[in-house]
Amino acid sequence: MMHPINRTLVAAAILAGSALAAGSALAGSFGGAQPTKEHYGVIFHIDAGDEATIKKTLTNVENLLHDPRFKGRKLEVELIANSKGFGVYVKGNGFEKRLRELQHDGVLLAQCSNTLREQHVDRNDLYPFISIVPSGMGEIAIREAEGWAYIHPSPPESQL
Amino acid sequence: MMHPINRTLVAAAILAGSALAAGSALAGSFGGAQPTKEHYGVIFHIDAGDEATIKKTLTNVENLLHDPRFKGRKLEVELIANSKGFGVYVKGNGFEKRLRELQHDGVLLAQCSNTLREQHVDRNDLYPFISIVPSGMGEIAIREAEGWAYIHPSPPESQL
Amino acid sequence: MMHPINRTLVAAAILAGSALAAGSALAGSFGGAQPTKEHYGVIFHIDAGDEATIKKTLTNVENLLHDPRFKGRKLEVELIANSKGFGVYVKGNGFEKRLRELQHDGVLLAQCSNTLREQHVDRNDLYPFISIVPSGMGEIAIREAEGWAYIHPSPPESQL
Repeated sequence: MMHPINRTLVAAAILAGSALAAGSALAGSFGGAQPTKEHYGVIFHIDAGDEATIKKTLTNVENLLHDPRFKGRKLEVELIANSKGFGVYVKGNGFEKRLRELQHDGVLLAQCSNTLREQHVDRNDLYPFISIVPSGMGEIAIREAEGWAYIHPSPPESQL
Repeated sequence: MMHPINRTLVAAAILAGSALAAGSALAGSFGGAQPTKEHYGVIFHIDAGDEATIKKTLTNVENLLHDPRFKGRKLEVELIANSKGFGVYVKGNGFEKRLRELQHDGVLLAQCSNTLREQHVDRNDLYPFISIVPSGMGEIAIREAEGWAYIHPSPPESQL
Repeated sequence: MMHPINRTLVAAAILAGSALAAGSALAGSFGGAQPTKEHYGVIFHIDAGDEATIKKTLTNVENLLHDPRFKGRKLEVELIANSKGFGVYVKGNGFEKRLRELQHDGVLLAQCSNTLREQHVDRNDLYPFISIVPSGMGEIAIREAEGWAYIHPSPPESQL
């Protein structure tokens, strides 16, 4: 079944005599989406609390901050934890330094308050420098409505 | 590497003599994003069918509905199931009451029709009060293009 | 707690004498969101590299392309791989044919360059017809800011 996706590319492939040509052309010319806005926002979602998921998620946030495409643009980032994801903010979890560095770079570190109640977590068990928000779900809904991107890294296999 | 993120906060930290001050200021002042729109839409994605994933996802939907930030605003919500996520709608799965309550609160309960074919699921094995849509992927694509937020809770570790 | 969601439906339920009526009415009348735009964009995120996740993700992409609701509209699609998700592009993984078909249909096949460095992957170990982008996270952020939908299928249980 053929859809009208990128008719130009398909036409180019036909002209070139093969579909492969289109593929090669694409790989050759495409080097990533180019930013056109002055302001970007991204909310990262973490809802698993094992060490591998925390590591992966923080690395993802750091890689976003370091993407050269945002140089000279405003980039707002928030990390929202709910469900077992509160583990990213538990005192003594070994991630305090990386969290502080992210916060120093402007990343908002937010924890869902419903989770604290549902998972019987004391706010004092979490780093004092994080913020509590009414609900993680509401936080994501509002951010995306503001035009922020949503990124939810999946828990890695190594959690097993 | 330093990016132009929240220059104001960083400047505040410098004035206060440390980056930690910025962190504390943040934690102290930030209590969650504030809604500015009259209308919000959220599509939840479920594509795993184990009991723990279903419980977690439904709790997430309920927590969104109860976030006080949406009081007095229009909030449209849809739960789209595809792949093994059809389990959320299988008759006798123990979640009928919660699903009916969500639907009573206006949540659209939608099932991908491709999944029924691919996973050999009879529509009559699903609750009669759910809706079948052409594809779960198309449903998400259209909703996000309408400005709805996308939230995909991850399958919890307890599924193992 | 009652929110102002779909007051009309709830009113209909009251008129009909039960909340169940609203549910049935919904299931009966709702057949999926209707497209209103001429142009849609979707970025799929893959960050696990097991065979089951790859299969599921590619099937999800294919199902989007085949959704009849996009017939006659422009649909742009990109698959971005980061973390262990680079597995989808490793030579000899058995998915070359499906990837080439997706590319032939206009799907952009993109790999995060940070991942290659962090996971010690040689670009030559990946199919030559894929594209390398500065960061997977930046790619997603830019696409969503452009109005593209984000879809991240979860790794299936069968990966275990």
